Amino acid sequence: MDYLNYGCCEEGRFIKRVFPILAGDDAWTACVAITEPAGGANLEDPALQFKTIKTIARPDVDDYVIKGHKIWPGPAGWIERFQSENLKGHIGYWTVVSTDPTLGEDGAAIFYIPPDAKGLSFSNPYEKMGFAWSDENVDIYFDDVRVPKRYRIDTEPGEGAKLIKGYIMGLGRLAGAARLVGLSQAVLEICLDYTKHREIAGLPTRERSLFATLIAEMFRAIDISRNYYLSVTWQVTQPDTYGPPWSREMIAKFSAARSFAADTAKFVTNTSMELMGSYGYSYEFHVEKYMRDYKIVQMWLGGAHRDRLDISQGLYGPFKWGGFEEWAKKEKLIP
Amino acid sequence: MDYLNYGCCEEGRFIKRVFPILAGDDAWTACVAITEPAGGANLEDPALQFKTIKTIARPDVDDYVIKGHKIWPGPAGWIERFQSENLKGHIGYWTVVSTDPTLGEDGAAIFYIPPDAKGLSFSNPYEKMGFAWSDENVDIYFDDVRVPKRYRIDTEPGEGAKLIKGYIMGLGRLAGAARLVGLSQAVLEICLDYTKHREIAGLPTRERSLFATLIAEMFRAIDISRNYYLSVTWQVTQPDTYGPPWSREMIAKFSAARSFAADTAKFVTNTSMELMGSYGYSYEFHVEKYMRDYKIVQMWLGGAHRDRLDISQGLYGPFKWGGFEEWAKKEKLIP
Amino acid sequence: MDYLNYGCCEEGRFIKRVFPILAGDDAWTACVAITEPAGGANLEDPALQFKTIKTIARPDVDDYVIKGHKIWPGPAGWIERFQSENLKGHIGYWTVVSTDPTLGEDGAAIFYIPPDAKGLSFSNPYEKMGFAWSDENVDIYFDDVRVPKRYRIDTEPGEGAKLIKGYIMGLGRLAGAARLVGLSQAVLEICLDYTKHREIAGLPTRERSLFATLIAEMFRAIDISRNYYLSVTWQVTQPDTYGPPWSREMIAKFSAARSFAADTAKFVTNTSMELMGSYGYSYEFHVEKYMRDYKIVQMWLGGAHRDRLDISQGLYGPFKWGGFEEWAKKEKLIP
Amino acid sequence: MDYLNYGCCEEGRFIKRVFPILAGDDAWTACVAITEPAGGANLEDPALQFKTIKTIARPDVDDYVIKGHKIWPGPAGWIERFQSENLKGHIGYWTVVSTDPTLGEDGAAIFYIPPDAKGLSFSNPYEKMGFAWSDENVDIYFDDVRVPKRYRIDTEPGEGAKLIKGYIMGLGRLAGAARLVGLSQAVLEICLDYTKHREIAGLPTRERSLFATLIAEMFRAIDISRNYYLSVTWQVTQPDTYGPPWSREMIAKFSAARSFAADTAKFVTNTSMELMGSYGYSYEFHVEKYMRDYKIVQMWLGGAHRDRLDISQGLYGPFKWGGFEEWAKKEKLIP
Ligand SMILES: Cc1cc2nc3c(=O)[nH]c(=O)nc-3n(C[C@H](O)[C@H](O)[C@H](O)COP(=O)(O)OP(=O)(O)OC[C@H]3O[C@@H](n4cnc5c(N)ncnc54)[C@H](O)[C@@H]3O)c2cc1C
Ligand SMILES: Cc1cc2nc3c(=O)[nH]c(=O)nc-3n(C[C@H](O)[C@H](O)[C@H](O)COP(=O)(O)OP(=O)(O)OC[C@H]3O[C@@H](n4cnc5c(N)ncnc54)[C@H](O)[C@@H]3O)c2cc1C
Ligand SMILES: Cc1cc2nc3c(=O)[nH]c(=O)nc-3n(C[C@H](O)[C@H](O)[C@H](O)COP(=O)(O)OP(=O)(O)OC[C@H]3O[C@@H](n4cnc5c(N)ncnc54)[C@H](O)[C@@H]3O)c2cc1C
Ligand SMILES: Cc1cc2nc3c(=O)[nH]c(=O)nc-3n(C[C@H](O)[C@H](O)[C@H](O)COP(=O)(O)OP(=O)(O)OC[C@H]3O[C@@H](n4cnc5c(N)ncnc54)[C@H](O)[C@@H]3O)c2cc1C
Repeated sequence: MDYLNYGCCEEGRFIKRVFPILAGDDAWTACVAITEPAGGANLEDPALQFKTIKTIARPDVDDYVIKGHKIWPGPAGWIERFQSENLKGHIGYWTVVSTDPTLGEDGAAIFYIPPDAKGLSFSNPYEKMGFAWSDENVDIYFDDVRVPKRYRIDTEPGEGAKLIKGYIMGLGRLAGAARLVGLSQAVLEICLDYTKHREIAGLPTRERSLFATLIAEMFRAIDISRNYYLSVTWQVTQPDTYGPPWSREMIAKFSAARSFAADTAKFVTNTSMELMGSYGYSYEFHVEKYMRDYKIVQMWLGGAHRDRLDISQGLYGPFKWGGFEEWAKKEKLIP
Repeated sequence: MDYLNYGCCEEGRFIKRVFPILAGDDAWTACVAITEPAGGANLEDPALQFKTIKTIARPDVDDYVIKGHKIWPGPAGWIERFQSENLKGHIGYWTVVSTDPTLGEDGAAIFYIPPDAKGLSFSNPYEKMGFAWSDENVDIYFDDVRVPKRYRIDTEPGEGAKLIKGYIMGLGRLAGAARLVGLSQAVLEICLDYTKHREIAGLPTRERSLFATLIAEMFRAIDISRNYYLSVTWQVTQPDTYGPPWSREMIAKFSAARSFAADTAKFVTNTSMELMGSYGYSYEFHVEKYMRDYKIVQMWLGGAHRDRLDISQGLYGPFKWGGFEEWAKKEKLIP
Repeated sequence: MDYLNYGCCEEGRFIKRVFPILAGDDAWTACVAITEPAGGANLEDPALQFKTIKTIARPDVDDYVIKGHKIWPGPAGWIERFQSENLKGHIGYWTVVSTDPTLGEDGAAIFYIPPDAKGLSFSNPYEKMGFAWSDENVDIYFDDVRVPKRYRIDTEPGEGAKLIKGYIMGLGRLAGAARLVGLSQAVLEICLDYTKHREIAGLPTRERSLFATLIAEMFRAIDISRNYYLSVTWQVTQPDTYGPPWSREMIAKFSAARSFAADTAKFVTNTSMELMGSYGYSYEFHVEKYMRDYKIVQMWLGGAHRDRLDISQGLYGPFKWGGFEEWAKKEKLIP
Repeated sequence: MDYLNYGCCEEGRFIKRVFPILAGDDAWTACVAITEPAGGANLEDPALQFKTIKTIARPDVDDYVIKGHKIWPGPAGWIERFQSENLKGHIGYWTVVSTDPTLGEDGAAIFYIPPDAKGLSFSNPYEKMGFAWSDENVDIYFDDVRVPKRYRIDTEPGEGAKLIKGYIMGLGRLAGAARLVGLSQAVLEICLDYTKHREIAGLPTRERSLFATLIAEMFRAIDISRNYYLSVTWQVTQPDTYGPPWSREMIAKFSAARSFAADTAKFVTNTSMELMGSYGYSYEFHVEKYMRDYKIVQMWLGGAHRDRLDISQGLYGPFKWGGFEEWAKKEKLIP
């Protein structure tokens, strides 16, 4: 795959800046900013064709000037929050914008915004159910943030849309599948251990048929999820056969992998907790943490319903929402 | 029903102490202590016949002396923790014990233990996923706690078992059903409001067929759960027709009501959150709090699997676990 | 309720003809004909407002002349098929028509068509999965069938729509719920008997925790379904409190009752068969027959998806399909 | 794999007889007879160790004499039933027996029984829900059927058990997975076609979000099932890494593949029928046939519950049913 070359730029200076960081021994963090107040799922909806993006990049001589408002991206915030003993710093914001929403896919673009860019400001972090330590989610305000043209990652018309669909959302969902499978596996192992030692009338609970069956269904779901996301990962490496990551067919598979792994994690965390009673509910065994965490991996980058609709889009799309035309005309998104 | 008379006692002094508190305007708290380290579900399992209880009440002239260890009861703890501007105090501990575990059901008893009884001590509160403010769960140690005989709630042989099964567990599960239905209704209302205002291509999401269907299934589950627990509640008031609360048949219905309301709450909290995306995940809309809370109402007083097994016990029981006899002999629970 | 008076007519002759039949000792059959080639669910969809009906009743002096084509109604067919030792005959066809589809609800009407009316003809019965003996489903052709005006059941503007929605579909769905609960109960009893006698290592399968749990979930679903449809039935008798059967609120409840009872029947027939292995699959134990039969009771009168959408219509309707206006204009259903 | 050599025998005469048949152009049928009146699932249960087999092979000089009774094997019956224009004949019965049930796994054996062996007789075919044309299921009576020793397929102690577990049940379940995936795919294609042409208010139903989502979930389940059974099939070819087919680990995977493919088929046949209404219910579109057929592929060779328990046996077995020892002693299966 050649995607390492995307984002390459004039005189390679960007590469020179970022690569040593990525390849080095120190821990850094970074952020991709997509979601906007008008709805994250809008942006991921192929029927809406990026026409609803409200964060705008306006070319100005050798620069672009970016104005807009993102919500929920994370980890994000003032630069000092990301400098600690264990964390070297924040690399910056890969930001999804439009140069002109009425252009639809042709207007979509991705910019690299340094974490200390002028005009960038942040709200305080939100309070939320899980991912409480790893992610700081905030509002990001782009108040005429000026960056050189070479900070634009996509370089040809239509390439922005492809990268957003294939690499950010598509591979992002696939990575979510992997994360969800690992999480489920961890929970199953905790549960296997607990039910080995908790006995009913002389037999470990896991050897009673009810409990054995529930454990079997957890293992089955995990093993099947794992096989599937690995198979799809392999397909990504064969674009000639299976299509590029931004093809409707591959996006359908990324979405199938993520949504099934999420259903698996829902089943595994709930069932394991039910098999462990109060022990599952207490901080001590971590099951409750995994239950709080998996949920957002199911919902980000479009969520459970977009996943399903994107499977259908891959199978027999493209199709549009009923009433799309009228609405788009009324909103002046199409003439 | 005459259950208000249970726990009545010599010279009415106990009644005199507790009733003004219950009937007054101030807020007090109280606790029922059942669960033990060897497993909460054991105690709720009719096949084990209270033979596994390890908290023992030994008669001594006019008193009983109680020795043992309970875990997870709540709200429980040092008396000062329950005295604040809004809370007047802790009434005490209705504690499930055995006078002799080999007697099985005939040994089971309930004692009222004042919150400041000598010999009573507590661990620090546990950390857990939900019910973080309303419940403080701790270890309670009973180190030869001495109480007068009239603090024993049950007064005839076998009555202790009936009260524990019928009133503590049985009606406790039914009350859980009510709590879960109320919680689910609250979540649905939040979701109805959100999906009324979030639009896709000009229509509120809740008017799109996918979302309308998910909302319909939530409403259906709630309406059905509510009808069922109300019907069972009415049956409780007709013991001549339906049997007393400690009958296997009524316990089956309490368990059906609670477990179905819990499955409903699982479905409603998850689905509503999925319909609200990150908004459901943030503290702001409370959906995440309800998701963390419902789970323990599903799991306490025996949990999801005991509920199901108790339905079968009501339908064609009593039956025992395979290998029960061998085990009980080995453990010297039966001769 | 006064619905026995609907369909009453001039000089009471219609009543005189039909009532002795209904009240007598002999078995007769009858049919309600709704479904048309363009889709049964269309007719049950409140958003489409009966505008898609293609069977038209045209007034002509003292008569109406009916032209159109119904599919799937049953039992239907040539009159002789319904005359046997056990069956006295066919009473006739309550037929849903429109006097003018552009009028929408105001055009909807129901006619009684005698089984031997001139212009009525039938196809051969279809072959289908279940209901093989009780229902003969055919095409009915109405080739200028002429009936006197008093054969029109509805007598005031808008009454036809109310009767179709409230009595035919609404109460029809509720009756379906009752039928599905009875069917499920029958299957559970067969399964309880089988699993009492089939043993694994010395214990009846139904006393092993896995099987006990599955049986518990079947009983729970049935008991809850039964309570719900009985509660809704009682509500029908209190229209002042709950609204008439054609109100959106009551239709939502009929639909909840039917769709939940259908999900129950799906679960009960499948689970019982799985618990009985090949014995469930053979004709001998009837479980397979019930599995083939319940399915159509789930799907007729609109089906599983209309049920769900009608619950939402009751909760926050009326709402329309995205793109409805454009389409209706194009189809000239609205100006 | 070397399993083609199993069943090889003295002077290769058996091979000589069977191989031309298998490799030729004509259609023949054959049968594996396992199930007995005492329960098919018993025989597939590793905890019961083939101790419940009641069809006994007794060595007698150069022969074995087989006595017993099998039920449900198919296609089976009098030899003439399998001779027609399209079918050349019946090859015979691979029959699972024990030489001595108290030996457990060491007593298990497989014999080839020619279709016209003396002492073999059959009942009439049973009536059943599906597989009505392809399978004739009967009782087979073995009344001192005498076969030469070389008709015994297993040749070393313990090999019989391995072949039954690994090849008959194990690969049999895997083959079932393939069959179920193919069936589901066929049904989905029928449904995709129907929902492309059935419109609601101007859009094909499959482009409305509810229907698109249900179709997506069907495709997802099928694609995931397919990947999983293919992955397991590949693992079978790598016994050094994954273990031989009779290992607990591989049996767990065969069972996961089959049971998940069966759950998929249950979901796909039901959902497709619900999406097609009465059209799904009629013979015409074949969906109803597939619904009747998939069910037995889920239930044969042990069924849905054995599958789940065998997954757990692979994960942390071997373990036994509670009360196994007492029972086995009482039954004189162990000393
Ligand atoms: C811990 C956390 C970390 C996050 N990290 C990031 C990040 O790093 N960068 C970033 O950009 N965002 C991030 N997000 C935001 C997240 O990706 C979005 O919340 C998500 O994509 C869904 O968008 P939404 O919450 O705005 O929901 P909405 O768009 O309001 O949608 C709500 C629900 O409505 C439905 N819906 C609405 N529109 C559609 C549609 N067109 N098609 C189908 N269904 C629809 C769906 O059910 C959806 O779940 C994060 C969120 C959290 C909680
Ligand atoms: C917030 C909170 C409040 C609580 N409040 C109280 C309180 O006020 N008073 C009190 O006494 N306790 C209280 N509890 C404890 C609670 O009631 C028990 O945890 C619960 O009954 C289950 O017992 P367990 O956690 O010990 O689980 P275990 O008994 O260890 O069981 C774990 C799981 O194993 C299975 N299992 C084990 N044995 C059996 C069996 N015999 N039959 C069927 N399944 C079985 C079930 O799946 C069960 O869920 C509270 C717990 C929490 C978290
Ligand atoms: C044994 C049997 C007996 C029957 N008896 C009678 C009878 O006595 N009288 C009679 O009139 N009919 C009868 N029917 C027909 C039956 O009521 C209809 O088939 C049913 O209402 C669904 O209509 P349909 O099959 O035309 O499906 P369609 O209308 O083609 O719908 C197919 C599927 O598409 C979806 N769908 C389509 N349109 C909508 C919509 N607007 N809203 C939501 N979902 C939609 C649903 O998923 C639906 O299940 C009978 C059918 C059978 C099989
Ligand atoms: C069309 C058809 C074709 C068939 N073809 C053949 C064939 O070619 N050869 C052949 O030998 N057989 C064949 N069978 C029989 C089939 O394989 C058995 O029916 C099946 O294995 C289950 O056995 P059973 O029906 O005797 O059910 P049972 O053994 O009575 O079990 C019934 C149910 O009880 C439970 N159960 C019982 N015991 C256990 C246990 N120990 N562990 C877990 N669960 C248990 C399970 O839920 C099981 O489904 C066929 C059956 C049909 C219908």
